[in-house]
Amino acid sequence: METGPGDAGPVVIALDVGGTGMKCALVRPDGSVVHAERHPTGAERGPDAVVDTILDVADGLAGKARADGHTPRAVGIAVPGVIDEAAGMAVWSANVGFRDVPLRDLAVARLGLPTALGHDVRAGGLAEARLGAGRGTAHVLFVAIGTGIAAAHVVDGSAAVGAHGAAGEIGHILVRPCGPRCGCGRTGCLEAMASAAAIGRRYAELAGVPGSTAAQVAERAVAGEELAREVWTSAVEALADGLATGQALFDVQAIVLGGGLVRAGRHLLDPLRSALRERMTFHREPRLVAATLGDEAGCLGAALLALDALENR
Amino acid sequence: METGPGDAGPVVIALDVGGTGMKCALVRPDGSVVHAERHPTGAERGPDAVVDTILDVADGLAGKARADGHTPRAVGIAVPGVIDEAAGMAVWSANVGFRDVPLRDLAVARLGLPTALGHDVRAGGLAEARLGAGRGTAHVLFVAIGTGIAAAHVVDGSAAVGAHGAAGEIGHILVRPCGPRCGCGRTGCLEAMASAAAIGRRYAELAGVPGSTAAQVAERAVAGEELAREVWTSAVEALADGLATGQALFDVQAIVLGGGLVRAGRHLLDPLRSALRERMTFHREPRLVAATLGDEAGCLGAALLALDALENR
Repeated sequence: METGPGDAGPVVIALDVGGTGMKCALVRPDGSVVHAERHPTGAERGPDAVVDTILDVADGLAGKARADGHTPRAVGIAVPGVIDEAAGMAVWSANVGFRDVPLRDLAVARLGLPTALGHDVRAGGLAEARLGAGRGTAHVLFVAIGTGIAAAHVVDGSAAVGAHGAAGEIGHILVRPCGPRCGCGRTGCLEAMASAAAIGRRYAELAGVPGSTAAQVAERAVAGEELAREVWTSAVEALADGLATGQALFDVQAIVLGGGLVRAGRHLLDPLRSALRERMTFHREPRLVAATLGDEAGCLGAALLALDALENR
Repeated sequence: METGPGDAGPVVIALDVGGTGMKCALVRPDGSVVHAERHPTGAERGPDAVVDTILDVADGLAGKARADGHTPRAVGIAVPGVIDEAAGMAVWSANVGFRDVPLRDLAVARLGLPTALGHDVRAGGLAEARLGAGRGTAHVLFVAIGTGIAAAHVVDGSAAVGAHGAAGEIGHILVRPCGPRCGCGRTGCLEAMASAAAIGRRYAELAGVPGSTAAQVAERAVAGEELAREVWTSAVEALADGLATGQALFDVQAIVLGGGLVRAGRHLLDPLRSALRERMTFHREPRLVAATLGDEAGCLGAALLALDALENR
């Protein structure tokens, strides 16, 4: 991007829209953040109000950029759910109430800037692969484990989208045919066995402690509590099965784990690495590492989508 | 490719090397076959002899092309196993005894023509996606079900290779944690449940009829034999689980089934389509169709690799 004389330089406007909050930033072409802010999504107000907030926040960021001597050049917006990136359409997003919202065109109309719309986990994977734990690695599988589980397969810095914007749904692959029922309606999905929510729920049921969280289960397992260890281990084994399936199909160099569960650190990574290694027969074992960008990955990924959109114009 | 005056036109030399035989052809840039021949691989003679045969056959085809007024422009060779396509190296192939054979460079040295080396199932998938059942479809998953099970994910006419040439190993994803042991050493792999070999073996065990084949099981199931129906149905259910996992991760428009098992026709496709449909929750259901190029897919795919290599020079 060109820089005018006396200019503080070009930036892109990046928004990562989640069910509760939006992470927003002004980002330079090299990926450095010059300004960041957060706003509540207010999904309970309905989709139209959320769209208005997104556009207001993006417009505000454009103003902030100009006031600081920057030139805003493009907008990147990451949203959860099923996202048709080619059409710039938020097809379906339960968390923010979107159904067929042409968010890209709405942003172009409001801000007059080229805009890219992307999927939040794919944006996060893009950022981890290019700027975070996968930096310098051509074939990366990013797996976000939180309330749900989803993945992004990133090759040479670009994330697979699929034919209908639904690629990477590793949370809904079968790992335990006789396992618990999943939110998707099937039984035995990886997400129903090994998401942070599933781990907390499973322990709560077995221990009779309502409201247990995966973090508590991890702590208790480390402290030697037998039931917590059982629940933790069965989740780790299921995760290893899911990651081994991913490796069999994608053959990556590195698997980067993000999302809330990875805060358990080596209590997750060490046993998971061992369990994954056991499952590698003909496969090459991938490096298994924790994400390094934390909850800013999605916002940085949105910035990368905006920068890529500029480059491909 | 340019055509000289009085010339019958340019062709590429294509070889699909299997454990027992090689399918070979001269193929025009439009994918049409001007000449085809088959040769035994003779794998029992050891890898050096197989390499000599491959080079002799390719050289013979170049001579045949010239004799018929064609100009041979490039060579494409498809081989089973782990293939490093970028390095042109047959890394490991149990069926033909290869270990780290630099087949591409050997062919270049012998024939003096640009040469592409590829994986047999990926080559087959490429051909089915571009010339066969997936023609006109941007996102295709080709799944070959025979003695083993393997897949090729083809997007916009190019097949995913993976970081180490090992992508698409759908035969070795877990579908039945308590299932039979697989050749790879793990238990419950799709291949151990649903390959043609596994179906024949399972029926042979349960019925006490050694040497049963999947084709016989399919026939007996159609004729109403209870045990055959059970074996067939459990294989179809396992296949549906494997394909649903593929769809969750890849999000394709069409799944093309190839390999020997697809000769069962609608006795495979009809129940498999129903079982796959049951498993589609948030996913878009892919078209499920039989391959149309038969056992020539690998050879045509080798020709496409050769043509692509010319184009990318």
